[in-house]
Amino acid sequence: MIGLDETCIKNIVRRALDEDLGTGDITTLLTVAPEKLGAAIILAKQECVVAGMELAARSFAQLNSEVEFLPLLKDGERAREQEVIAQVSGRARTLLEAERVALNFLQRLSGIATVTRRYVELTAGTNARIIDTRKTTPGLRRLEKYAVVVGGGHNHRFNLSDGILIKDNHISAAGGVGLAIAAAKKNAPHTLKIECEVSTLNQLDEAIAAGADAVLLDNMSIDMLAQAVELAAGRVITEASGGVNEDNVAAIAQTGVDLISVGALTHSAPAVDISMRFE
Amino acid sequence: MIGLDETCIKNIVRRALDEDLGTGDITTLLTVAPEKLGAAIILAKQECVVAGMELAARSFAQLNSEVEFLPLLKDGERAREQEVIAQVSGRARTLLEAERVALNFLQRLSGIATVTRRYVELTAGTNARIIDTRKTTPGLRRLEKYAVVVGGGHNHRFNLSDGILIKDNHISAAGGVGLAIAAAKKNAPHTLKIECEVSTLNQLDEAIAAGADAVLLDNMSIDMLAQAVELAAGRVITEASGGVNEDNVAAIAQTGVDLISVGALTHSAPAVDISMRFE
Amino acid sequence: MIGLDETCIKNIVRRALDEDLGTGDITTLLTVAPEKLGAAIILAKQECVVAGMELAARSFAQLNSEVEFLPLLKDGERAREQEVIAQVSGRARTLLEAERVALNFLQRLSGIATVTRRYVELTAGTNARIIDTRKTTPGLRRLEKYAVVVGGGHNHRFNLSDGILIKDNHISAAGGVGLAIAAAKKNAPHTLKIECEVSTLNQLDEAIAAGADAVLLDNMSIDMLAQAVELAAGRVITEASGGVNEDNVAAIAQTGVDLISVGALTHSAPAVDISMRFE
Amino acid sequence: MIGLDETCIKNIVRRALDEDLGTGDITTLLTVAPEKLGAAIILAKQECVVAGMELAARSFAQLNSEVEFLPLLKDGERAREQEVIAQVSGRARTLLEAERVALNFLQRLSGIATVTRRYVELTAGTNARIIDTRKTTPGLRRLEKYAVVVGGGHNHRFNLSDGILIKDNHISAAGGVGLAIAAAKKNAPHTLKIECEVSTLNQLDEAIAAGADAVLLDNMSIDMLAQAVELAAGRVITEASGGVNEDNVAAIAQTGVDLISVGALTHSAPAVDISMRFE
Amino acid sequence: MIGLDETCIKNIVRRALDEDLGTGDITTLLTVAPEKLGAAIILAKQECVVAGMELAARSFAQLNSEVEFLPLLKDGERAREQEVIAQVSGRARTLLEAERVALNFLQRLSGIATVTRRYVELTAGTNARIIDTRKTTPGLRRLEKYAVVVGGGHNHRFNLSDGILIKDNHISAAGGVGLAIAAAKKNAPHTLKIECEVSTLNQLDEAIAAGADAVLLDNMSIDMLAQAVELAAGRVITEASGGVNEDNVAAIAQTGVDLISVGALTHSAPAVDISMRFE
Amino acid sequence: MIGLDETCIKNIVRRALDEDLGTGDITTLLTVAPEKLGAAIILAKQECVVAGMELAARSFAQLNSEVEFLPLLKDGERAREQEVIAQVSGRARTLLEAERVALNFLQRLSGIATVTRRYVELTAGTNARIIDTRKTTPGLRRLEKYAVVVGGGHNHRFNLSDGILIKDNHISAAGGVGLAIAAAKKNAPHTLKIECEVSTLNQLDEAIAAGADAVLLDNMSIDMLAQAVELAAGRVITEASGGVNEDNVAAIAQTGVDLISVGALTHSAPAVDISMRFE
Repeated sequence: MIGLDETCIKNIVRRALDEDLGTGDITTLLTVAPEKLGAAIILAKQECVVAGMELAARSFAQLNSEVEFLPLLKDGERAREQEVIAQVSGRARTLLEAERVALNFLQRLSGIATVTRRYVELTAGTNARIIDTRKTTPGLRRLEKYAVVVGGGHNHRFNLSDGILIKDNHISAAGGVGLAIAAAKKNAPHTLKIECEVSTLNQLDEAIAAGADAVLLDNMSIDMLAQAVELAAGRVITEASGGVNEDNVAAIAQTGVDLISVGALTHSAPAVDISMRFE
Repeated sequence: MIGLDETCIKNIVRRALDEDLGTGDITTLLTVAPEKLGAAIILAKQECVVAGMELAARSFAQLNSEVEFLPLLKDGERAREQEVIAQVSGRARTLLEAERVALNFLQRLSGIATVTRRYVELTAGTNARIIDTRKTTPGLRRLEKYAVVVGGGHNHRFNLSDGILIKDNHISAAGGVGLAIAAAKKNAPHTLKIECEVSTLNQLDEAIAAGADAVLLDNMSIDMLAQAVELAAGRVITEASGGVNEDNVAAIAQTGVDLISVGALTHSAPAVDISMRFE
Repeated sequence: MIGLDETCIKNIVRRALDEDLGTGDITTLLTVAPEKLGAAIILAKQECVVAGMELAARSFAQLNSEVEFLPLLKDGERAREQEVIAQVSGRARTLLEAERVALNFLQRLSGIATVTRRYVELTAGTNARIIDTRKTTPGLRRLEKYAVVVGGGHNHRFNLSDGILIKDNHISAAGGVGLAIAAAKKNAPHTLKIECEVSTLNQLDEAIAAGADAVLLDNMSIDMLAQAVELAAGRVITEASGGVNEDNVAAIAQTGVDLISVGALTHSAPAVDISMRFE
Repeated sequence: MIGLDETCIKNIVRRALDEDLGTGDITTLLTVAPEKLGAAIILAKQECVVAGMELAARSFAQLNSEVEFLPLLKDGERAREQEVIAQVSGRARTLLEAERVALNFLQRLSGIATVTRRYVELTAGTNARIIDTRKTTPGLRRLEKYAVVVGGGHNHRFNLSDGILIKDNHISAAGGVGLAIAAAKKNAPHTLKIECEVSTLNQLDEAIAAGADAVLLDNMSIDMLAQAVELAAGRVITEASGGVNEDNVAAIAQTGVDLISVGALTHSAPAVDISMRFE
Repeated sequence: MIGLDETCIKNIVRRALDEDLGTGDITTLLTVAPEKLGAAIILAKQECVVAGMELAARSFAQLNSEVEFLPLLKDGERAREQEVIAQVSGRARTLLEAERVALNFLQRLSGIATVTRRYVELTAGTNARIIDTRKTTPGLRRLEKYAVVVGGGHNHRFNLSDGILIKDNHISAAGGVGLAIAAAKKNAPHTLKIECEVSTLNQLDEAIAAGADAVLLDNMSIDMLAQAVELAAGRVITEASGGVNEDNVAAIAQTGVDLISVGALTHSAPAVDISMRFE
Repeated sequence: MIGLDETCIKNIVRRALDEDLGTGDITTLLTVAPEKLGAAIILAKQECVVAGMELAARSFAQLNSEVEFLPLLKDGERAREQEVIAQVSGRARTLLEAERVALNFLQRLSGIATVTRRYVELTAGTNARIIDTRKTTPGLRRLEKYAVVVGGGHNHRFNLSDGILIKDNHISAAGGVGLAIAAAKKNAPHTLKIECEVSTLNQLDEAIAAGADAVLLDNMSIDMLAQAVELAAGRVITEASGGVNEDNVAAIAQTGVDLISVGALTHSAPAVDISMRFE
């Protein structure tokens, strides 16, 4: 896992605040006196795995450094329905101005962490790791991959430059699995492994023979995955990918694959219902 | 509806490409010759309302202005399962480098448009408009609100500065519905209406008496919504909000409310499955 | 009024300092020792309404956080000729490097506040509000609209997205006052009022009939304004606009219009003479 | 004179458009069909020296590169009252969206050029040059200094790094005129002249003796300026500064000073009335 | 190798032009008429391997898109002393304004390519690759790593996120070579190999036993390198690092190591003398 | 000399950290516990003049404000071989993450300062100043010119707008030395001197006659330089330029020229070997 650094968070929060404030929160300016103080709780309206506390805290702090934000749970901990997960106090105007941004981060990231946790639990007792994909929301990849880790998953590559994954289109451009792997091996940086997508057992054979370090087993049935794992016999890392859902993930894990990548962790996790209430 | 301007799109696409490319697509550089050309189709793997064609086109064009992107459907049109929605051709490297970014935009925005269309259809024949909320993905609000319109919905305010919406916390800070509305009316720009959240019929009375232009009927039952609409008697715009879902939206619409706001349009729409295939 | 948020001020001050410093204040570096301390006063050389203290304070602080800036007047207070309005002390180099930027902000914003105050005083005792326009200096609109409020005026819309104002060109594009208003009402967000420019009493009638919330009475004579107010009879908000100056503003206000918009507040306010003197 | 480069203009126009458009021109979107074309004229409502044509052209072009902008006068030419100074045609929406930004640039820059031209004409037949100061609008210095040149004036230094001007505060920090000039000469880059402010004839003597290249004669009476010019006898460049206005500038010029700096060119020039009219 | 994308180049060139132009090229504006055209040659004053043509071309084009830049050699080709490597023609002002920036890029990148080529030639006939390090000029890493490839070298990792290299400090923090490698293997993304620095043969043994994919042989003598290669026996990739220079690189290569990393390629390559001459 | 301001440093350090960290230091995250503290020394591996301490300090502080950086030498002081020049302590992860960036700044800037110091010492006892050129690394000019001053040199102009230097190409465009100088004198800001390149004694004569303030003696032999100095006789500042190296700089200085400009100070200074070692 690669954590979130301060600058990364700061810029994303800045952009979100600018987006939501426009030229200023006119309602709050009209109805709440500048000197008024307030205190509020942040509440999980449904059971979930919490993620994004730091983002929420920053949403308030970057508007007004005097607001106090007290997290009651840490990222990765499970909140019960109706559990208070944080307290926040300070200038009432700031609390109202930053509320939506703070909640939008918490709702989305907790949503991802919660879904991830379910997949992890469904595969407990196997050796398979649940990993994410690059099917993330444009501009928020680091946050979303962070939430996957918070949920107990692992990260696949972050972007196209920190991992080699030869896909079907690369294979056809290069003239076959073997040629593609050979081309990659010839000039690849010595720091990167070479992973290659295969959709048949023959391709798997070819990939292993050509010296792949890992294979992505694309859209294979449970049976075929099991055969592939047997054929691989530990010589390459195996990743199951395509059509994974909560119904079939346990069976996939039991085939013995090393990794199961799930796009839905990031592209289709519903938001968790979290709200803020003044006291 | 407020459309997407060119600069807005350009910056968002730029950020997404930077995020995904890192220092460059190492796999493609290693396996695909620079001069090689290619052609691919973009395919809806499930029925959906398409949204985000311009974003997809830009994802390729901002990497290489010579790529040709031919949309076969327009935003707002419905794609059948397995329908080709666009064709793209040019330098094979560019096609591979921009593929994921283009698809990420299409999958997410089409997801929102598709869900919105369902809500719109469920309320067909009533006067109620389906509107969105500020529960959007940080940094992507304009895209997501655009997708709502593409799906047939309408937009609530874009941000805190272009609409006045007095919520429970403003009310308690101001000392009551009447006082809050009075404070807002005193100094509000003459260009903005005043909307106020109410959760009881008494509050509704008070809001109308104080001169609100619109009321947000918060988390009311179907019965209570119907009473509220009757009480309002056309003197204020009525917005139903809270707990709306595909099961109850038709009944809510039939109460006669003017607007129904649905956070799930943007915060929980699952991605549509769309992929790219080389020919 | 929408206030100035910290980030907005910070960026504008940053740009102004960069612009004025270039690669550094060569004169000061050559003639003033780095360790030398200094103290200076900021002096109004003419009577004025002060505006921009926060900007001035920031101009010093963003160069060197150890400079102390003590405002002796608050924004909106009136300075007498030769009155000391602030004291500043710290590293002599910083005082000299930030002097011009700090004064440029104060001179311009106080100029706007001072002119606004005159218009407000000339219309005292009437119900008319003095409001600004979008005829502001490119890049400084928020500062200039803030200075109008400091001077006692009110703000019209901030930009093209937070208010609907149908002007003559929109009317001719839409085919008439009634059609333009109808088009706007059909799809406008429910949070915005609809204001329409009219230049005859017939158009005023048409606008009211079509359901406008406000009308801009364009370049009308005092007599015609009075007739318009009578005709409107409180059914729409009335804004007088065009050709307003210090000679006619009182008479305009006495016609009973609700708002008087004055471009000169921002586009032609002469700078107030303010200087800094070392002690 | 240093001209305006393309990037400088582009960024300033970008910022101005963003500021004025917010999330989009809602009025135009609601009332003008996307395919509608239009043509408009830009009209000087009062006699003036035109400046800013390029900025106006860019305001339209940066929104939509297909708009045609045809200037009928060049920067520096004089427009008569009611003269059409440019024609613009294209998508009606774009014309309306960019109108205010284009006019704001033209009004302000033409205001500066027009005032400058008056000063230049008032000093015609003398050797004195009219020059500007650093009393400019924060963020727009290059535009404003450009407008001064368009009006027939010359530029003083652009910022604190491209000219040495020892002022009273530097003198007192350094311990006197002679010491300050000596300090500057010792380490100054060999590419910069050294100018020193003096307010008495004794200081002038001291500055010349210490080797100044130029002197700023601060707030001197006409008589004293004449004496200073005589005393300088061509050994240093002489700049009159402080309290210059349209009433006294001719007399100042006749004292024989080389340069007359006028803050009012940029800090107090009223906007010229320029408007756009659809045809 | 990862190439240079258009945006990367564009931003770096933009920054360089801004840095060199300041508020404009005053000399050229004063002495060269705006309409004057010119033609110039770019000349290698010493033998070298050319790198940076695209940067040079962009330096002119980003100031004025009408300048024609004709490269006579491609990046990676060798220029003889006094060979003309490019021709450029267009507006004389642009040629002069962009000259220094274009040459600064060419001089530096050709310097790196030229030095790299020497190391590559000195190790010809062996299996060793010459690779770079992260000892690059802050902000220019991608350009400099590109120049290494142009010179015939290969790239080590681009940054801290796209390769795992366990160094002495990590080892001591983790409690030893074996523990550090074990910790890395446990949570590393499956796409990255694990390289570990070792400075003794014992550590080498330990690294191989722990499952390292590659080892950095730190500051070893030629003899010890040879022993290390023998000990490794192809089980891990071997990289020689530390104290490599033109005198010892051939001997190092002959020990049989796979990679030789040379900081001097980027941190100490002298500029190649390249100049521009008007015709 | 113009110093480094805080914002300038901050942005350059930010860019360098982003460049080196990518999405995060994966090795450190995998092998070093988050809570672990550490202390390290920064060591000069060869004798040098230190420059860049502030940059190094910032490299750590901008990642984590709690790291303590204690410089043991100041910029401009000489370090002996193996001398500890700074100590740094704090979170071990931060020390490792910022190490390379901090060292890259120190190595490069100390390299420039060290070379400059040699040139200054070689010309000790003469009146000649060693000055730099615009042959700097794109994007790092201010840092590199700062390092020249730290080494005891002086700065030539920073960019094209803060000094006038008429070169051969300007001369031929203007029609000769005399015409070029006349053109420059006519419109140059009164704050800038006029320097002109000459390559013969005739041109020198012509430049002096036309009123140049300084001359750049281009690529002249020692003899010719001596003649030029004699001919100039103190009427203009003389700068020797072209082909200066450590072997001939003393002889050049002894001709009596005022300035000697040396491109190699910035374009070819080898990095000083500086490293960080954990304790």
